[in-house]
Amino acid sequence: MELVAGAFSSAAEKSKQQGKELFLNSNRVYGSYREMAERESRLPQDERIDFVSIVTPNHHHFEIAQTFITAGFHVVCDKPMTTTLADAEELCRLVKQHEVVFALTHNYTGYPMVKQARELVRQGTLGTIRKIVVEYPQGWLANFLEGAGAKQAVWRTDPQQAGVAGCFGDIGSHAENLAHYLTGLEIEEICADLTTFVPGRKLDDDANTLVHYENGARGIMYASQISIGEENNLRIRVYGSEAGLEWRQEDPNYLHVRRLDGPEQVYKHGNNYLAPVAVHNSRLPFGHPEAFIEAFANIYRNAGRTIAAKIAGTTPGEFDTDFPTVQDGARGVHFIHAVVQSSQRRGWMQARYTPPQ
Amino acid sequence: MELVAGAFSSAAEKSKQQGKELFLNSNRVYGSYREMAERESRLPQDERIDFVSIVTPNHHHFEIAQTFITAGFHVVCDKPMTTTLADAEELCRLVKQHEVVFALTHNYTGYPMVKQARELVRQGTLGTIRKIVVEYPQGWLANFLEGAGAKQAVWRTDPQQAGVAGCFGDIGSHAENLAHYLTGLEIEEICADLTTFVPGRKLDDDANTLVHYENGARGIMYASQISIGEENNLRIRVYGSEAGLEWRQEDPNYLHVRRLDGPEQVYKHGNNYLAPVAVHNSRLPFGHPEAFIEAFANIYRNAGRTIAAKIAGTTPGEFDTDFPTVQDGARGVHFIHAVVQSSQRRGWMQARYTPPQ
Amino acid sequence: MELVAGAFSSAAEKSKQQGKELFLNSNRVYGSYREMAERESRLPQDERIDFVSIVTPNHHHFEIAQTFITAGFHVVCDKPMTTTLADAEELCRLVKQHEVVFALTHNYTGYPMVKQARELVRQGTLGTIRKIVVEYPQGWLANFLEGAGAKQAVWRTDPQQAGVAGCFGDIGSHAENLAHYLTGLEIEEICADLTTFVPGRKLDDDANTLVHYENGARGIMYASQISIGEENNLRIRVYGSEAGLEWRQEDPNYLHVRRLDGPEQVYKHGNNYLAPVAVHNSRLPFGHPEAFIEAFANIYRNAGRTIAAKIAGTTPGEFDTDFPTVQDGARGVHFIHAVVQSSQRRGWMQARYTPPQ
Amino acid sequence: MELVAGAFSSAAEKSKQQGKELFLNSNRVYGSYREMAERESRLPQDERIDFVSIVTPNHHHFEIAQTFITAGFHVVCDKPMTTTLADAEELCRLVKQHEVVFALTHNYTGYPMVKQARELVRQGTLGTIRKIVVEYPQGWLANFLEGAGAKQAVWRTDPQQAGVAGCFGDIGSHAENLAHYLTGLEIEEICADLTTFVPGRKLDDDANTLVHYENGARGIMYASQISIGEENNLRIRVYGSEAGLEWRQEDPNYLHVRRLDGPEQVYKHGNNYLAPVAVHNSRLPFGHPEAFIEAFANIYRNAGRTIAAKIAGTTPGEFDTDFPTVQDGARGVHFIHAVVQSSQRRGWMQARYTPPQ
Repeated sequence: MELVAGAFSSAAEKSKQQGKELFLNSNRVYGSYREMAERESRLPQDERIDFVSIVTPNHHHFEIAQTFITAGFHVVCDKPMTTTLADAEELCRLVKQHEVVFALTHNYTGYPMVKQARELVRQGTLGTIRKIVVEYPQGWLANFLEGAGAKQAVWRTDPQQAGVAGCFGDIGSHAENLAHYLTGLEIEEICADLTTFVPGRKLDDDANTLVHYENGARGIMYASQISIGEENNLRIRVYGSEAGLEWRQEDPNYLHVRRLDGPEQVYKHGNNYLAPVAVHNSRLPFGHPEAFIEAFANIYRNAGRTIAAKIAGTTPGEFDTDFPTVQDGARGVHFIHAVVQSSQRRGWMQARYTPPQ
Repeated sequence: MELVAGAFSSAAEKSKQQGKELFLNSNRVYGSYREMAERESRLPQDERIDFVSIVTPNHHHFEIAQTFITAGFHVVCDKPMTTTLADAEELCRLVKQHEVVFALTHNYTGYPMVKQARELVRQGTLGTIRKIVVEYPQGWLANFLEGAGAKQAVWRTDPQQAGVAGCFGDIGSHAENLAHYLTGLEIEEICADLTTFVPGRKLDDDANTLVHYENGARGIMYASQISIGEENNLRIRVYGSEAGLEWRQEDPNYLHVRRLDGPEQVYKHGNNYLAPVAVHNSRLPFGHPEAFIEAFANIYRNAGRTIAAKIAGTTPGEFDTDFPTVQDGARGVHFIHAVVQSSQRRGWMQARYTPPQ
Repeated sequence: MELVAGAFSSAAEKSKQQGKELFLNSNRVYGSYREMAERESRLPQDERIDFVSIVTPNHHHFEIAQTFITAGFHVVCDKPMTTTLADAEELCRLVKQHEVVFALTHNYTGYPMVKQARELVRQGTLGTIRKIVVEYPQGWLANFLEGAGAKQAVWRTDPQQAGVAGCFGDIGSHAENLAHYLTGLEIEEICADLTTFVPGRKLDDDANTLVHYENGARGIMYASQISIGEENNLRIRVYGSEAGLEWRQEDPNYLHVRRLDGPEQVYKHGNNYLAPVAVHNSRLPFGHPEAFIEAFANIYRNAGRTIAAKIAGTTPGEFDTDFPTVQDGARGVHFIHAVVQSSQRRGWMQARYTPPQ
Repeated sequence: MELVAGAFSSAAEKSKQQGKELFLNSNRVYGSYREMAERESRLPQDERIDFVSIVTPNHHHFEIAQTFITAGFHVVCDKPMTTTLADAEELCRLVKQHEVVFALTHNYTGYPMVKQARELVRQGTLGTIRKIVVEYPQGWLANFLEGAGAKQAVWRTDPQQAGVAGCFGDIGSHAENLAHYLTGLEIEEICADLTTFVPGRKLDDDANTLVHYENGARGIMYASQISIGEENNLRIRVYGSEAGLEWRQEDPNYLHVRRLDGPEQVYKHGNNYLAPVAVHNSRLPFGHPEAFIEAFANIYRNAGRTIAAKIAGTTPGEFDTDFPTVQDGARGVHFIHAVVQSSQRRGWMQARYTPPQ
C-alpha cells in the first residue's frame, strides 16, 4: 500500500504543503476532496488511486464517502461513520449499488488477541454468553481543553463536527463494536446515563449504559473522558456459562481465559498454539510486543487485500474480509443515537437494529 | 480478645461438640442464642462476655442482635444487618436506647490501603468526586450449586434465609458500603437491572446498577455471582476533578493514584509515607503482605477497643471508632431493597436514605 | 496453640511488663531463658509448655535451643539457626539424642502456592530442572540506619549478633532454603560476590551468587539490602526441560506455570484444582487473599501438630511433618559460611554439604 | 526512508524474486552484496542508496560493512557487529577514516521509556549507581530445534555463523548494551558461567555473569535460551543511592521508579511530563501502546536523520545522534569474548575495554 494522492486540508495551500512533506507528486495533491475524486477518476485505471482513506472529523465522513463511492472508489473510513442514521443507511445503499469495498476503522478489533478471543467464543469455549462488561475510560478531557483551543478537543466536543454524542461518538462506539465483534450478539435494549461534567462543554463527557442483548445476556457498557488517570483503557470482559475472558487494549498481547475448574490461562501473541486468524493478524515472534499501529494496520491490510482481490477479480483470502463494514458503521451510528435518546428519556428503550444489507 | 462462650448451632449437641473443639469451658457453650444471652447476663460483670459476634445466615441477625442488645451486650454483626428495613431501623433505635457499641463487619473497609484512599479523598487530593465505579464480580454460583446441597450456596440463594436480593444481599452491599466509606457520598437515585441466569435459582445472580450521588457524581455499581473466573474481585475506582484512584481487594496492599500531569503513584502498605490511619490498621513491615484476615481483624480490633473504652468509661482512641455502624447497616439494607425495587420497576428511582441516628 | 509462658527480655522487669501486656500468668513470665527452661521443667507434664519458640537475634539461638532441647522441650526456632556451623551440627545431634521436634521458621515455604509449586516439580511437570533464579532484594538498609540506632538495623548489621554474613544471614538463607524446598536439589559449587555499599557498615549489604546444583542445573541466587524500592521481593523462577514456574512473595497467591506449547497457567490459592498439600496449607476460599501471617502460621501449625502427635504417641498427618528441620538449619548455616568464603577467595568453591541426620 | 535496492540472497535468483515481492526496480536487485556496492557506487550521487542496512547472520556483518564503508556508504548494521574483536576494531577505524555514519541496531534502546530511564539517571534521580540487574531469558531453544532444521535456530547455534557465544552473542549483548546505555558505566571485571543444556548443541544456551562496574557498582547480567516460558523477557533494574528503576521489554510503555520515602512512580509513554528525548522517540498519544517495531524504527529514524544531515552538510538535531555506534559494537564484541573466556577460566577476569575512537 502506498500513499500516492490526497487532499490534506480544505485550504489548498496547506494541502500542497502537507503533500510536499509526504513526498507526493504535487499533481496529485488536491485542494479539496471533490477535486480529488474528480481528477483521480479521470486518470487511467492503473494510475488512479485504488481506494480513499477518510480521516477527517466525523461530520465530513458522509459527503466524502458518498463522493468517492459514487465515483467508483473503494473506501476506508474513520468512525463513527456518519453523524446521522439516514446518512449511514444511505452509505449502506451506495456501497451495495456501486459494489465497492468499504472498511470502517474500528481499529481495536485488529489486535491478534481480539481475534483469538473471538475464535474462543465461536468455538464455544465460553458456552452461552451471559454477561459482557465493556468499558472505555479516558481522562484527557477532564478540563475545558476546548476552551484553550486544543485542536483534538475542539472538534470532538463540538456537536457540529462530532455529532450528538461526546463519549459514545468518540470512543464508546469502539466499545459497542468490540462487544459485537467478539460475541456476534445484537443489542436488544439499553438504559443510558449521559453527563457533562466540565462547565461550558457542549457534549456529554461521561456515559454509562446498561445493556440487554438478544440472547438474554446482560451488559454494562461505558465510556468516559473525565476519568482522570485513565489513558485509553478500553477493556472487555465476556462471561459465558463455561468460561470467562478478559482483554485490555493497553496490554494488548495477552488474553486471559478463566474456567471454573482449572488455572487461569494467559494466551500470548505470536505463539503456535493460537488460532490461525490470530496468527494471520500478527507480525512478530512471541515476546516481541505488537501494539496500536500494527492492529490499525491489520484493518488496512485486510481491507487492502480485499480491495486488491476485487480489482483483480479474484476471491480474497479466508481472513482478508475480516474488517468492519458499512453495516457495522450503521449499527454504530444507530447505537450512538439510541444512547442519547435513552439518556434523555431517563429509561430503558428498545435498541435492536438491523442495518440495510 | 478471647472467645469464651458461644452458641454454635441450633442443635444443642452440635453446639457442644463445636465448643469442645474450640477448647471452651462446656458451661459456656449454649444450645441456643437465647440461652446464651440469658445465662451470660446472669454472670458477674467481669466474667460475662463483653460482646457477642453474630455470624449466622442473614435472617437470624435481627433476632439475635435484638436479644443481646436488649440484654445490654455490645454486638459485632455480619452483614447485611437484617433482611427488612423495619428490623434495621429497630436495631438503630435499640443501639441508641441501650447505649451499646454495634459494629457491622463490612470487612473490606478494614484494609490499610482503603484507609489511605479515604484519607486522600478527605484531604482533597481527588478534588470534587465525579465518578465512582465499583464492581464485585464472583463466579462461584455459575452453576446450580444449591441443587447439589452446597451449604454456602443453599442459604445464600434462599430468600427465606438471605433476604430479597442475591448479589446485592451477599456481596453488592460491600460495594455500596465501600463507595460510601471512601467518599462519604450519599446515593440519590439508582437504576438497577437484576437477572437470574441459573435455572432453578430463586434469587438474582447478576445485578448491575447505575447510580446518581448527592453531589452530582455518577456511578456504576455491580455485583455478580455468575462471572466465571472472577473469584472475589471487589474493585473500586474513584475519579475526581483533580485525580483518580483505584483499589482492588485481590491485590490489597497497593493503592493506585493518578493525576493529570505526573506519573501514576502506587502507595504500598507498611510505609512511613502513609497516613496515620493506614499505619494504625497495618501490622507488618512493607513488603510483608497483609490480607483478608488482617483486614477483617481490623474491624474487630477497632470495635473491640471502642467496647473496651466503653466498659472502662474512657474515650476510645482517634482511630478506634473507625468501623461500620448500625447506621451503615440500615443504609445497606435500604439500598438492597431499593435495588430490587428499581429492577422490578425497570427504571430510575429515588434512593436517598437517612438512617435513624 | 496458646502462649502460656515466656522470657521476653534479658531484663527481668521488661520481661514481666511484656508478659503482663500479653495477659500471661505472672508466675510463668521469666527473667531469663535459663530460668524459664528450669522452672517449666519442674511443672507437671500436662502443665508445662509443650514447646518453646525462639525469636531472638541470631547469636542467641544456639544456647537457648540447646538449653530447651536438653531439658526435653520441643523447639521452634527462627533462622538462621546458629551463627557457626559447629553449633548447627551440635543442634542436629541434640535433636536426635533427645528425640524432640525441631522446626525452623523458613516461613516463606509456608505459602500454599509454594506447596503447589513443589508438587508440580515432584510430579515431573517441569521435567529435569535446568535453571533456578532466586532473588531476594530489599532496600531498607540503603542508608546507615544502624548509625541512627534503628533497632532492627542495629543487630542485623552487627557481626556479633547476626553472624558472618549480612544479606545471606538475614534474608539470603530464605532464598537458599526456598530453592532447596521447591526442587530438592543440593548445591554443588558456588561463586559469590559480597559487597558493603553503605559506609560504616560492618557486614555486606549486597550479595550475588552463581550456583551449580548437583544434577548439573545452574542458578543465580542473590540477596540485597540496598536495592532501593524493593520491599521484600523474594522471587523464584525454576526452569525445567518441560516447563518453567515463577512465584513471588509479594504476590503470593498466584503461581505461574509456563509450558512450551500452550498458554501460561496461573494457579490461584483456595481452588479445588490444587494439590492436596496446597489445600492443607490454605484457610480461605479463592479470591480471599492469604498472606505473610497465614504462611508463617502454617509452619507453626504443622510443627504444632507434629509435636502434638509426638506427645500423644501417635503418627502425625501426611502433611503435618512438612516444615523446615534442624537439618535445613544446618544446611543454611553451612551455605552462609560458604558464600562468605567464596567471596573472600573471589572464585568458585565446593559447597556440597550433608547435615548430620 | 525508502527501500530502493538490495541483495536479498547469495543466490541471485532468490534475490531477484524477493526484490520483486518488495516492488523494487529489478535493476537494483543484486545477486551479491559486492555487486550491489559496486554498481550502486557507479550511480549518480542523488540516485544511489544513501545507506545500506545489514541484516544477515553475524559472520557476514564485517565483510559487508567493510565493503560498503570503503565504497563510501553509510551503514546500519545488526548486532553483534562482528564475530571477532579484530574485525570490530577494524570497522571502528574504517568508519573514522571514511567519515561515514554507522549505526548498530541495539533496538531495545529505542524505546521511549528507556530514553526516560536514561534521563533520570543522568539527572541524578537515582544518585550514585550501586547495582544493575539485567536479564534476558528466552525459552525457544529449550529443545534441539537446529537438529530439526529450524532456520532461525540453525545459524544462531552454529559457531561458524554466530560466533563464539550462544546466549550472549544472540541476546546477551543487548543486555550489556542496555545497561551501558542507561548508566554510562563501563564494566571492570566479570565472572561468567556458560552452559550448554541441550544435547548436540554447539554453543552455550544459558549464560550467567557477575559484574563489577568501574565505579564500584555490582551487577548480575544473564541471558538464557532454555528458560521455558520466557519469551523475550529483557528486563533491567538499576539501583542507586537515592532511587531504583525497573523497565521490561515485554511491557515497554511503563517505567517504574521507586524512592525510599514515597510511593512508587510509574511513568507512561506519550505524556507531557516525560523528558524531551522520550517525547522525541514516541509517536502516539498516551494509552495508545507503542512497541517493538516503533522502538526499532527509532534507531533507524535517528540514524537516518543523522545520515541526511551528513549528506546535506548540516548539523543533526539534538536527539538525532542518539543511536548505537560502531564503538558500542566493538564494546559488545569485546564483552562477548570476555564472557566466554571467563567461563572457560572459571573465574573473575578483567573486562575493561576502550574501543578505538
